[in-house]
Amino acid sequence: MGIPMGEFDLIRRYFTRPTPRAVLGVGDDCALLQPRPGMQLAISSDMLVEGRHFLSTVSPAALGHKALAVNLSDLAACGAQPLAFTLALALPRADAAWLEPFSQGLLALADAHGCELVGGDTTQGPLNICITVFGEVPPGQALLRSGAQAGDDLYVSGTLGDARLALEVFRGTLSLPEAVFAQARARLETPTPRMALGLALRGIATAAADVSDGLLGDLGHILRASGVAAVIDTSIAMQLIAAGADTLCADGRFDVKKILACVLAGGDDYELVFTAPVAARQAVQAAAAQAQTRVTRIGQIEAASGAPAVRLVDAAGAPVLRQFASFDHFA
Amino acid sequence: MGIPMGEFDLIRRYFTRPTPRAVLGVGDDCALLQPRPGMQLAISSDMLVEGRHFLSTVSPAALGHKALAVNLSDLAACGAQPLAFTLALALPRADAAWLEPFSQGLLALADAHGCELVGGDTTQGPLNICITVFGEVPPGQALLRSGAQAGDDLYVSGTLGDARLALEVFRGTLSLPEAVFAQARARLETPTPRMALGLALRGIATAAADVSDGLLGDLGHILRASGVAAVIDTSIAMQLIAAGADTLCADGRFDVKKILACVLAGGDDYELVFTAPVAARQAVQAAAAQAQTRVTRIGQIEAASGAPAVRLVDAAGAPVLRQFASFDHFA
Repeated sequence: MGIPMGEFDLIRRYFTRPTPRAVLGVGDDCALLQPRPGMQLAISSDMLVEGRHFLSTVSPAALGHKALAVNLSDLAACGAQPLAFTLALALPRADAAWLEPFSQGLLALADAHGCELVGGDTTQGPLNICITVFGEVPPGQALLRSGAQAGDDLYVSGTLGDARLALEVFRGTLSLPEAVFAQARARLETPTPRMALGLALRGIATAAADVSDGLLGDLGHILRASGVAAVIDTSIAMQLIAAGADTLCADGRFDVKKILACVLAGGDDYELVFTAPVAARQAVQAAAAQAQTRVTRIGQIEAASGAPAVRLVDAAGAPVLRQFASFDHFA
Repeated sequence: MGIPMGEFDLIRRYFTRPTPRAVLGVGDDCALLQPRPGMQLAISSDMLVEGRHFLSTVSPAALGHKALAVNLSDLAACGAQPLAFTLALALPRADAAWLEPFSQGLLALADAHGCELVGGDTTQGPLNICITVFGEVPPGQALLRSGAQAGDDLYVSGTLGDARLALEVFRGTLSLPEAVFAQARARLETPTPRMALGLALRGIATAAADVSDGLLGDLGHILRASGVAAVIDTSIAMQLIAAGADTLCADGRFDVKKILACVLAGGDDYELVFTAPVAARQAVQAAAAQAQTRVTRIGQIEAASGAPAVRLVDAAGAPVLRQFASFDHFA
């Protein structure tokens, strides 16, 4: 009940690859993996829909990259090593001019992380990309959302907010200098999953999540799972936007509130937000250096004391906004 | 980038279940499974799209059942024991009146097979259901498509063709007595994955596949993977339709060719087609008895000798049709 035979051949051509590590790859009723003795299997599944997770303007190669990247990002947040993935794909039609670059973008990222395409499904339908990814992690070493402790430092990797800048340009609500837009667009369309950092943080971070829906939202998952609250220094957070807060404010179209909205609630960043004990500051920086990934300490975990769960403060510790409900939507 | 928070709550309500066996279930970046030492992991992924894999007339409960059943059927074809699954769901809107029965149908079948819902994704979009299922199988014991040998017997489980009868009624190309239609509709909408039979056939069957696209198509996968051909006795195959060949022919609207088209190329049967040595006939029947699943010997595997790969013969061994290309589409 898939798509016609000629189209199956196209799929086979673009998605059937050698799987040296899997016992059995694409082409039987099931794929077969042989987990390493004692290892736990980390599993994540993400479904991407046009207009919601990507725009029709995205190149097929970038879309292939992003479809896997958002799944790998979940493995990174768990500190798991990628092993394999399945791809289920609904396509309006099997079009070589789309499938070839899509598969190249997808498989280039897969190869870079040793993540084998072992199976999946193809069918005709409104464009929909569903990837399920498998990784391994030694028992007890997975980074969970539930381990944050009051007093822990709060960190994020990389930069935040630029993907949202690009999205707003596409939506026509914003214009940016060409070079700034190009950099922001790359962040939106070809995010970098923080695999090496996730692995390096095993045994150091007390909790972690990936930032896919915006920092405040994903930090919220950690806070709820851990039963704690957090304070964020907005003077540091503002500096996380790669486009540069000063550059953005220079022409008057941007202000601090808009920049913070992008950084704190922009979405599509695919960075890691994580917590670690104060005593582990050196270990965190060593992990960041080992992973060649920038890590910024943006605040601290506090004991829960009723809403709001996140306090935003300035460099002197004074509250900058009494609530951040307005950050749920782009202001 | 999923669906709004109030709708997340609905999803949580209907799909978050205890996972006593998984190390970590729904609610973190990844689920965590601890495979049993030495076991191989069998993985299959199927994507269901409205209008292609199910009709808008299907009840949400039946759809929930079918979405998992078609995945479990792939595990059955490998002789794997179900462990867990992920569910990725795109919905036009989060509607409790749909989600509640859908989840009930889905989870009732999951519970019946000890298959835990450990994670997934929900988003807004054209209705699309993507399930990835995980099972375990001892190394070397998975049933593959590639092991059929010339001289092996050819078997199918259960009944074939009735799902197609129901589909043709829905399409308006056929009418059936009410009781016959009800039975056929149940076969189309709530197929029974042959889990117990798949397990019982470990070490007995030389090759197996599930019949999802029609017997000839799925048998074709076995023949290509094994480098062999097959002969099918159509006088036996005709009797596989549960509606009954005699009943169908009685009112003159049906003939042998149409019945064979349903049996051999109907699709949506979710039975197993498998091969086993002649010396294993008793073992096959014992496996069928143990699994409480009817098994019918419909032919034999032959050495490959050029196209066509499947010969259709009558009870006396005489060819009944020179080719079966016409069975690619309902005649």
